[in-house]
Amino acid sequence: MAERDFIARLLAPLAATPAARGLTDDAAVWTPPIGRQLVFTHDILAAGIHYLPDDPPSDVAWKLLAVNLSDLAAMAATPAGVLLGLGLSAAEDDSWRSAFVAGLGRALAHFGTALWGGDTVTGLDRAVLGLTAIGWVEPGHALGRVGAQIGDALYVSGSIGGAGLGLAVARGARPFDKTLLNRFRRPTPRLALGAALGGLASAGMDVSDGLLIDADRLAAASAVGLAITLDSVPLALPAENLAEVMAQVTAGDDYELLFTAPPGTDMAALATATKTPVTRIGTVVHGSGLRLTLAGQPVPLPGRLGWEHA
Amino acid sequence: MAERDFIARLLAPLAATPAARGLTDDAAVWTPPIGRQLVFTHDILAAGIHYLPDDPPSDVAWKLLAVNLSDLAAMAATPAGVLLGLGLSAAEDDSWRSAFVAGLGRALAHFGTALWGGDTVTGLDRAVLGLTAIGWVEPGHALGRVGAQIGDALYVSGSIGGAGLGLAVARGARPFDKTLLNRFRRPTPRLALGAALGGLASAGMDVSDGLLIDADRLAAASAVGLAITLDSVPLALPAENLAEVMAQVTAGDDYELLFTAPPGTDMAALATATKTPVTRIGTVVHGSGLRLTLAGQPVPLPGRLGWEHA
Repeated sequence: MAERDFIARLLAPLAATPAARGLTDDAAVWTPPIGRQLVFTHDILAAGIHYLPDDPPSDVAWKLLAVNLSDLAAMAATPAGVLLGLGLSAAEDDSWRSAFVAGLGRALAHFGTALWGGDTVTGLDRAVLGLTAIGWVEPGHALGRVGAQIGDALYVSGSIGGAGLGLAVARGARPFDKTLLNRFRRPTPRLALGAALGGLASAGMDVSDGLLIDADRLAAASAVGLAITLDSVPLALPAENLAEVMAQVTAGDDYELLFTAPPGTDMAALATATKTPVTRIGTVVHGSGLRLTLAGQPVPLPGRLGWEHA
Repeated sequence: MAERDFIARLLAPLAATPAARGLTDDAAVWTPPIGRQLVFTHDILAAGIHYLPDDPPSDVAWKLLAVNLSDLAAMAATPAGVLLGLGLSAAEDDSWRSAFVAGLGRALAHFGTALWGGDTVTGLDRAVLGLTAIGWVEPGHALGRVGAQIGDALYVSGSIGGAGLGLAVARGARPFDKTLLNRFRRPTPRLALGAALGGLASAGMDVSDGLLIDADRLAAASAVGLAITLDSVPLALPAENLAEVMAQVTAGDDYELLFTAPPGTDMAALATATKTPVTRIGTVVHGSGLRLTLAGQPVPLPGRLGWEHA
């Protein structure tokens, strides 16, 4: 399929919003909501690095959108539109491309957002898929890694470690488990919770490289320490020993929200209102870095806190 | 250099604007100007496809920014910020990365815009460089391919064909010529002219794939014909014969603006005010497609109008 046909036949139906101008112009034009700040993020997924080449193309599309919307959620933003930067190789044949676009369309509809534009390049050696997500937030409500205060409670949404176990399933290193596999392939950006945290949480980010390494980054940005009780971390699978705990709290790709809020915040009500599990896992303390405990005993930090980009 | 150091040492200094939040958060936050529409574009340059692997990295950075800003200019928009999606291979070593970022910094400063955020991926087989540009335009002033009216004059900025000749220089197929080489490697987005055309031109786009093919696209989108007098096209090099004319009007990468405006528009004043050469090359006519003439005689359309993406 020529690029022109790919755009006209497959992508244009996903761009059913005036901002996209039918994908016929050089750029998208959007009238932003009055009295809002805008939030912008761009994340890349590369075949063989961020997903497995034989992952279903509709799941790849879902994940590409989800990881970007997770960044918006982490800033307390609500998505408005996306631009797609598709770099494709011969491995992404017409059948792959059709399934990818169909999956992207379902994902965009699921999250209430639309394709505004982008670019497609073919002839690469492997797929390199970029997506820019644009969202909006109430003025001053954007969350960031800076802002955690001593005495704040530390929370995480959903469960931790499932995506890492799902990757092992996808690689054949663990028995088939659809739930874990979906944690890796179809992460859930916590948009409702993120939007609700604006103006309420003191700091926040999404857990993309592992709970511990991301917590360490939040601590560094806020110039505080984080005391984490490992017993309270909502693990995707019950752990039999410390090694199994550590494997899950250092695994990436969970795309849960990690955030701090003043003590006394009614987080149970917020969790109910946003239909999102929220668990308190620690406290903001003086100092720097992480202090881990398990069953009341200090636990030394593992040598590797999570996924470090080369 | 680890990705963390690359971001902190090299990229963060380019993000000296509050929207970027020091590149420490998951996304950028920007307060848009009141009473403006926003314009978004995303273009990719891949090594070996859109530029030659031994092109100077600072020129690659310039071109990556310029081709995106050209899309903003084509919509009559003024740039505000950019997100960078860097996919890198081992060929882009520390020295390449430093030179690329230094060149990008100079280009951003030159065009009065800033880095807001993005993503970096390493371990690819070749560089795949994406950039999202965000700009603003007066409400209703965004140009598009739709809107050319019968009787409007057809204009092009600058000169045509130079980038194609410059590519031949870069490939060693023509004698060294710095001016032509720069036309290929360091195109000039026509931002001042584009912004001035908002509310004045009836339709517009940038010439990225070749004058004829892009004119044909504008004609199709506006459902009109375009009569082009080839004698009047401002060629980068004087042509000795029709073949030399055709080579230049079907070559890509010029990033000039092609636009239509009502007869009687004082284009000379606009060209002077924006310090941009503007040449009338034809007229919007009834019908469809292109009608070419040279020295008063009809010229058949060439089999290939320009660069068609596979």
